Amino acid sequence: MSTFGTLFKVTTYGESHCPSVGCIVEGVPGGMNLDASDIQPQLDRRRPGQSKLSTPRKEDDKVVIHSGLENGRTLGTPIAMIVKNKDHHPQDYSETDFYPRPSHSDLTYLLKYGIKAASGGGRSSARETIGRVAAGAIAERFLKLANNVEIVAFVSSVGKISIDKNPSSPYFQNLLNTITREQVDQFNPIRCPHKDIAEQQIKLTESVKAQRDSIGGVVTCVIRNVPKALGEPCFDKLEAMLAHAMLSIPATKGFEIGSGFYGTTLKGSEHNDMFSKNTDSNDPNDKYNLKTLTNFSGGIQGGISNGEHIYFNVAFKPPATISQPQETATYDGAPGVLKARGRHDPNVVPRAVPIVEAMAALVLADALLIQKSREYAHSIVDFSKVF
Amino acid sequence: MSTFGTLFKVTTYGESHCPSVGCIVEGVPGGMNLDASDIQPQLDRRRPGQSKLSTPRKEDDKVVIHSGLENGRTLGTPIAMIVKNKDHHPQDYSETDFYPRPSHSDLTYLLKYGIKAASGGGRSSARETIGRVAAGAIAERFLKLANNVEIVAFVSSVGKISIDKNPSSPYFQNLLNTITREQVDQFNPIRCPHKDIAEQQIKLTESVKAQRDSIGGVVTCVIRNVPKALGEPCFDKLEAMLAHAMLSIPATKGFEIGSGFYGTTLKGSEHNDMFSKNTDSNDPNDKYNLKTLTNFSGGIQGGISNGEHIYFNVAFKPPATISQPQETATYDGAPGVLKARGRHDPNVVPRAVPIVEAMAALVLADALLIQKSREYAHSIVDFSKVF
Amino acid sequence: MSTFGTLFKVTTYGESHCPSVGCIVEGVPGGMNLDASDIQPQLDRRRPGQSKLSTPRKEDDKVVIHSGLENGRTLGTPIAMIVKNKDHHPQDYSETDFYPRPSHSDLTYLLKYGIKAASGGGRSSARETIGRVAAGAIAERFLKLANNVEIVAFVSSVGKISIDKNPSSPYFQNLLNTITREQVDQFNPIRCPHKDIAEQQIKLTESVKAQRDSIGGVVTCVIRNVPKALGEPCFDKLEAMLAHAMLSIPATKGFEIGSGFYGTTLKGSEHNDMFSKNTDSNDPNDKYNLKTLTNFSGGIQGGISNGEHIYFNVAFKPPATISQPQETATYDGAPGVLKARGRHDPNVVPRAVPIVEAMAALVLADALLIQKSREYAHSIVDFSKVF
Amino acid sequence: MSTFGTLFKVTTYGESHCPSVGCIVEGVPGGMNLDASDIQPQLDRRRPGQSKLSTPRKEDDKVVIHSGLENGRTLGTPIAMIVKNKDHHPQDYSETDFYPRPSHSDLTYLLKYGIKAASGGGRSSARETIGRVAAGAIAERFLKLANNVEIVAFVSSVGKISIDKNPSSPYFQNLLNTITREQVDQFNPIRCPHKDIAEQQIKLTESVKAQRDSIGGVVTCVIRNVPKALGEPCFDKLEAMLAHAMLSIPATKGFEIGSGFYGTTLKGSEHNDMFSKNTDSNDPNDKYNLKTLTNFSGGIQGGISNGEHIYFNVAFKPPATISQPQETATYDGAPGVLKARGRHDPNVVPRAVPIVEAMAALVLADALLIQKSREYAHSIVDFSKVF
Repeated sequence: MSTFGTLFKVTTYGESHCPSVGCIVEGVPGGMNLDASDIQPQLDRRRPGQSKLSTPRKEDDKVVIHSGLENGRTLGTPIAMIVKNKDHHPQDYSETDFYPRPSHSDLTYLLKYGIKAASGGGRSSARETIGRVAAGAIAERFLKLANNVEIVAFVSSVGKISIDKNPSSPYFQNLLNTITREQVDQFNPIRCPHKDIAEQQIKLTESVKAQRDSIGGVVTCVIRNVPKALGEPCFDKLEAMLAHAMLSIPATKGFEIGSGFYGTTLKGSEHNDMFSKNTDSNDPNDKYNLKTLTNFSGGIQGGISNGEHIYFNVAFKPPATISQPQETATYDGAPGVLKARGRHDPNVVPRAVPIVEAMAALVLADALLIQKSREYAHSIVDFSKVF
Repeated sequence: MSTFGTLFKVTTYGESHCPSVGCIVEGVPGGMNLDASDIQPQLDRRRPGQSKLSTPRKEDDKVVIHSGLENGRTLGTPIAMIVKNKDHHPQDYSETDFYPRPSHSDLTYLLKYGIKAASGGGRSSARETIGRVAAGAIAERFLKLANNVEIVAFVSSVGKISIDKNPSSPYFQNLLNTITREQVDQFNPIRCPHKDIAEQQIKLTESVKAQRDSIGGVVTCVIRNVPKALGEPCFDKLEAMLAHAMLSIPATKGFEIGSGFYGTTLKGSEHNDMFSKNTDSNDPNDKYNLKTLTNFSGGIQGGISNGEHIYFNVAFKPPATISQPQETATYDGAPGVLKARGRHDPNVVPRAVPIVEAMAALVLADALLIQKSREYAHSIVDFSKVF
Repeated sequence: MSTFGTLFKVTTYGESHCPSVGCIVEGVPGGMNLDASDIQPQLDRRRPGQSKLSTPRKEDDKVVIHSGLENGRTLGTPIAMIVKNKDHHPQDYSETDFYPRPSHSDLTYLLKYGIKAASGGGRSSARETIGRVAAGAIAERFLKLANNVEIVAFVSSVGKISIDKNPSSPYFQNLLNTITREQVDQFNPIRCPHKDIAEQQIKLTESVKAQRDSIGGVVTCVIRNVPKALGEPCFDKLEAMLAHAMLSIPATKGFEIGSGFYGTTLKGSEHNDMFSKNTDSNDPNDKYNLKTLTNFSGGIQGGISNGEHIYFNVAFKPPATISQPQETATYDGAPGVLKARGRHDPNVVPRAVPIVEAMAALVLADALLIQKSREYAHSIVDFSKVF
Repeated sequence: MSTFGTLFKVTTYGESHCPSVGCIVEGVPGGMNLDASDIQPQLDRRRPGQSKLSTPRKEDDKVVIHSGLENGRTLGTPIAMIVKNKDHHPQDYSETDFYPRPSHSDLTYLLKYGIKAASGGGRSSARETIGRVAAGAIAERFLKLANNVEIVAFVSSVGKISIDKNPSSPYFQNLLNTITREQVDQFNPIRCPHKDIAEQQIKLTESVKAQRDSIGGVVTCVIRNVPKALGEPCFDKLEAMLAHAMLSIPATKGFEIGSGFYGTTLKGSEHNDMFSKNTDSNDPNDKYNLKTLTNFSGGIQGGISNGEHIYFNVAFKPPATISQPQETATYDGAPGVLKARGRHDPNVVPRAVPIVEAMAALVLADALLIQKSREYAHSIVDFSKVF
């Protein structure tokens, strides 16, 4: 459905070619300073037309806050945000009246809803993610206030051109410890933080574009200053919620947390994260103040955050819309050749970066609110005789 | 939380060392033939002590159905299932009173709940998955009845020893098309369907066990005869629900659907799944009857099933409990050496197979019920003027 | 929270003095004819300023549909609807900076959210109900299509002036059988369907208004052509969902279904509804075709609709805003006299009529979708050996 | 469905004639002292066979806790509780194979689920409420710990014999202020706290029983020491959740909060609750410390608790099972005479008292957890410039 979250909750609406797209965000604490300028930067990072590597569709994507705010303060009530759809070209899609586009959702939407949008991707369009990014920007402000949480996503690979993301490599560990959004955007348009590799990725993308083709990639995300104890066993473990959130982003094919698939090749003696005293920390809610010496766990143990960095990879397939003729079939099953003419990205990963950050923020804000209700309960229980 | 699903819904309970573990399943259609013998086989496949490769904990794990059933028929009401915990050895865990076990959930449970089970993994124990497997067995019966759905999981890799799981390899495609649970169990204890590779995996597991160590692995799952149109955009896409379900299984680190991470290296022209008439099908609910010639999508497009096989990989880390001394710290932060003495598996993947199948069944049964409510709506709408 | 429903679901937003109010409706079947003119009539019935009996606040409350619609057909995707706030007079409320208004939510919002809207009722304003009415209008269209469901609410009492609503009175039974919205609106501005009593109620309201006071009342609602088998035991019985829905409407104090509180005075032999063959019905889904000879149950037995009329009463308190000085206290606890100056209704019941209808429609549409998923399951089960 | 609540959540299972009934409770804080003896007293008050006024079915209804507990402390994990069904007499119900019992759920369950329990009420039996009462007892312990919350329900009327429950009467106000469960049980078997009226109610019940008939009644409930700021506008207002909870109890027909239906007859100037300084209170979370001089609101304003007593009435219909022949129809529609022979109560209200208390506790515990997550957020927001 179009609602995500339990206490911190977003509901989105909108198709590629309707008057507007947007969302309602519920569970935002009252009294927070907020205005549209807190939300616009992430929308700008998601916006099409930022560079020659992305779709030329022109949208300024200006967000307007319609509720939940008074005199620059949140009221604790639902926040509605609206972004107008401006540059829609319905005529671009006429040929798709006869052909379901390969690896698109034309056929499956038709099977599911009995009808599909005549123009563009409809609800399956990437414009649907605008509501997510707007909501995520609010979640991020709350997390910043709560624990100075930092969420930074970046492109780690395009096609086979990848940074070293072995979880035990010093390069990768250092990257996770230090990378900032400002650094990520320096390497725009590709948003890979390794200068040489970024250049190769840009070249690859340009070459693929010249071939009227597209290419996949991986977005890596790190979350620092994560409050401890977030995540709800057994079904709503923190990594399960992150996986749910990430696989709900259009074009995603995979998710791995911490050591991920690489971790399956290790022995327990290599993979276990040993504890030691965390002399840097003075979290009053944590009398243990332990840290781990390695972090193959990716900051989550037993489905619950342990305070170490959370990091994960998200796989994005090559965009399905390509400017090549494709030998496929019409809705009626007649073989034929489809020429797609819509405007699309040769590579979605640069624009996916703020979407991954937004979904991560939504998961964490919700988990934080849920855990805080439990911590209240702890304050009224006499634990004196408990371990 | 401990509830999963919207209409077909399971709520589980139980720790490793309490009187019983089990679940309540809601949303099971009335009138279905059902008794404990329909559920026991999958519990038996999950049971510890099946071979020398798994924990020697002895549990016969006999399920008893307490409600929702009369004269061998479901009543449509909640089905409670209970499995007694028998062979618990609380004393085995005494040393963990001082040490949080590395890469276990001892510390994070304590941070989250203010208390943790003194014995064993408590709620984070693999015994929690008994309720899932029991519920999944009922979901499977419903799916079988509905569309003859077949769900088969198997071990594809242990450590680095892997079958060929390139989504375009003929070997792998054939495996997805034909593999049965009977075949998977022939290669017990490892449950890898490739005889030679299974033997290597068994050897590796035995060697790791001899070293008092553990090793990770990957479980692959295929779902055949999937009803079309399942999955709820935008947040509850079918792959997002599967990812959520799989990452909620203890010890999982990753999930990939269809082409997965490999797919990020392909071009759109290689990755797109072209359509053609499906002359074999006569699904009365689908006037299009299209199939795809390849299946990099993994049976899901736009978050909605297209009727092709759904297949995915789930990464399992090496079990955190190893029989080696580990240099770590006590809860108080004092450095020291922990010797774990509990009974555990050198490798969880063989026993994970029925758990993966169960979670897949729960996701599909829920998605099917939700979609069927929509298909009713279609029957009352006049689509004559719609595309 | 601001979301209601499971499959047919509305999320609302908006305060009394923000740019707009509105909602997102999810679960609307695809392919339905729909445009704003299907929704506007109920918004017009809810609108302030319809007569001298209601608040003079002037709002034309024109709804705009922003998504989920193409060429006059629903797409099955979320439908966003927006109504601008025009005539806001923030200055009217300045005195309430010092006084929490008695029996308003000023104090409780401040306690809950740490902040409250400076102007008017904020989120607790009746303008919040616009989203409900808009969503309810779509639910009604679906229910009409599904089973020609008719929902008619009317004012049954104002103060002590009441129609005969004894559930066994022939007058009341006939009213339930025949009353239409057109008839209800003939007696506008009070919307009581009994001409003489309506006139007395109007006089009472005018007299109360002249006294700068307000008065309570009861809205009665009947639902005809209810599909059988709706409602989800045990917690989401149909009457429980209706009670939830009705008590969520601002200013409500009570709910009774069927015989209600009167029914508590009866004996079982008087109250039981005997069955007989329903020779008028030929519902193919109901092989029993039984009706009841009386209907003290109010169309629901065991939490599940039986096909008889559902009818219920909803109690509305007198509006808390009155134009009299009130001896109360400031936020600081200092005793003082508050003069309220906002524009409000002497009586909310006439404008509550479409809100009650909307909430009833939302409950039924959701229950219908949920039940239809179950009826699908029935179609695949072999009930031949079942009772 | 069979799950109630968001963070403090109960899922129940069980029919009248299956091996056991029970529930899983989630969201219970860790570290609380708890054992079966904390739960048994309310189950004993609900138990059949307590007096000649209730059904002679003999069940000792001993609860066993299966999970979530270790050494007398809660673990924060799901608590499963099981009560065996002992005295089931399936043969008592054979005649109902042919007749749907009037005003029972036999027919509606059959319509809904395609099957119904052959014996007794199945899922619609009052035995379903055992899980609610057990869960409610845990919720009460949490509320007691949190704010010394007191929940006391009692029978206020049987048939037309009622105590004075006018919300402005000194008698009723005093009753709400002082009544205890011990006092309520002194007047067992009827549980009306007014000695003379209790005697009349007992006589009426005995007389009705002698006539092989049944009679309805009203249960009133007061909640004292309610934490302020509970309840979630707009749809989950505290009174809306209470209404939902109460109307989900079998045999209920109505709910009214505070002034209720009586309040509809008052003017705003009579009904408004004026504020004054609360010199008795020193709640550190409430800098306002205001109380109201009257309490027509019933402790809730704008859907949010204001710290005054919450009080409400719940209407119970006369039990549908009576020992008289009833002229009705068979499932096939043939007219005939049904003689019911099951064991049932002439009056459900005395046994409903602990069920009403349990449902009230569940609503409050959930609302408290949700609000506490918000209060955390307040602690991190700088409200210095906010009103």
